[in-house]
Parts: sequence; structure tokens; C-alpha cells
Amino acid sequence: MINIFTDEYFMKKALQEAEMAFEKGEIPVGAVVVVNNIVIARSHNLTELLNDVTAHAEMQAITASANYLGGKYLKDCTLYVTVEPCQMCAGALYWSQITKVVYGATDEHRGYVKMGTKLHPKTVVVSGVMADEASELMKRFFAERRK
Amino acid sequence: MINIFTDEYFMKKALQEAEMAFEKGEIPVGAVVVVNNIVIARSHNLTELLNDVTAHAEMQAITASANYLGGKYLKDCTLYVTVEPCQMCAGALYWSQITKVVYGATDEHRGYVKMGTKLHPKTVVVSGVMADEASELMKRFFAERRK
Repeated sequence: MINIFTDEYFMKKALQEAEMAFEKGEIPVGAVVVVNNIVIARSHNLTELLNDVTAHAEMQAITASANYLGGKYLKDCTLYVTVEPCQMCAGALYWSQITKVVYGATDEHRGYVKMGTKLHPKTVVVSGVMADEASELMKRFFAERRK
Repeated sequence: MINIFTDEYFMKKALQEAEMAFEKGEIPVGAVVVVNNIVIARSHNLTELLNDVTAHAEMQAITASANYLGGKYLKDCTLYVTVEPCQMCAGALYWSQITKVVYGATDEHRGYVKMGTKLHPKTVVVSGVMADEASELMKRFFAERRK
């Protein structure tokens, strides 16, 4: 049997969220959280709209997932996010003890890997999933901003 | 003229918030944000009540301050927090470009200094203000929990 629920399948949903952010003039980062192949949270960056530096896609996804699950630990959850999390989001993921994080494009400047932020030892990380699509959206956003 | 608006003056207000957290069964951390000697936000840890790992005192204080100021950068703001911020909160403070952070007790295990999280280069840090009081409250909380 073919498994349609691949990392790419869910990353496409995160990319749709990133596109929604783009259309609102937000830095285009999107996220979804998945448990047993079911999407339990979807979100995109809203820092401009909410005037709030904490309103990253991942932060909203963590809060929404915990609300859905009725508990603050994201056991058996996978976060798909189009761009590598920052220090703040990686720090929140650390506390959530999330099972798996899948991200697309690397953030060479402010990504958690470069910044040395620690995820929880339990958390499995997969990177580079649909990285070109995520990266292209970011580049297009900043190119349009500079116009 | 005597300046009553010392770091201790505002840290006492953060400690009052920490005590409110304690009474609710939350890990007792409190925070206030001050601009021109005026408290514009006060908060305490609510991770249990809200079932949300992101509901640290500092995160709420950042969001509330930005809301009060009508802008997401915490220019001319000082955050007083009873315990050293974690990776997540330091990461949020980084994005906020906050002017000054004053904290009380050190968190040897999960504090941002030990974890290597970077604050914004603009941000001035003062540590150890009323550290004994903050630390005592934390110790009392965990001692009661173990009973």
C-alpha cells in the first residue's frame, strides 16, 4: 500500500500556511502539527498583525496543539514548519518535549542550529523537506519588500 | 533627592507576581515591564493553568507590553523577572530588542546563560537583584511539591 502521509504531504500544508502569511505581508513561515496523520493545528507567522514578536507560526502551533490535546506535552506530535525554528521557538519546542520536528529551509543567520539552542533529547529532527519551495517564498517576500 | 525607583523597587513587584503564581500551584516566577518608572505589564507563570509551555511570565509580559505600546519592539523598556529567563524567553527578548533585563535568581540548569542563548546586542543585563528572595520562593515551592 502506498503511504500518502509522507513528510512532503504535511509540509505542503505548512507551505499553504506560509503563503497565507505572505499574502498578509507577514514573513512567510507556516506550520502544522500532526498526530497519527491528523492535522491538529495549523498556523502562520502573525508578528506584524498582532504587533507581537512572540507570534511565530511555531509558537501558535504549540499553544493550539496543547489546547487540542488537553495537555502541555506534545507527545506523539510532529511539527512541520517551512523554515528552521529560531531560538525562541526551539526553546518552546524543548519545553513541549515534542516527538518530531520537520523543517524545510535552513536559517543560516538566526536558526536554532547556528544559535546553539537545544531541543529536548527526545525530539527527532528532519530537515530540508521541500526546502527549495520554502526558501523561494522567503526570497520572493524580501525581494518584493525591497522594491 | 532619593530615587525610590530602584531595581529592588520593581523587583519586589515581580516577586509579588511570583507569589501569586505560587498560590496557584504554578512554578513561582513573576515579571513586570517598566518604562519611565511606570509598570506597563505584570505577569506570572501560568503554564499549568493554561496547559501551555509557552505561558512563562516573560512571554506574557512581552506580549502585554507590545500591546500597551502599540508596537512590537520594547524600546526603553526594562523587564524585571524573578528568575533567569530560559532559552525560549531569552529568544523572545532577543526579537523584542528590549533595552534592559533585570533578573533575580540564576537558573543553573535551564537558564539562558548556561544554555548559550543570545540576547539582542542592544540589551543590558543586570542579574542577582533580590536573588535570595526569588530563590527561596522556588525552593519552598519544590519542597512542598515533594511532600
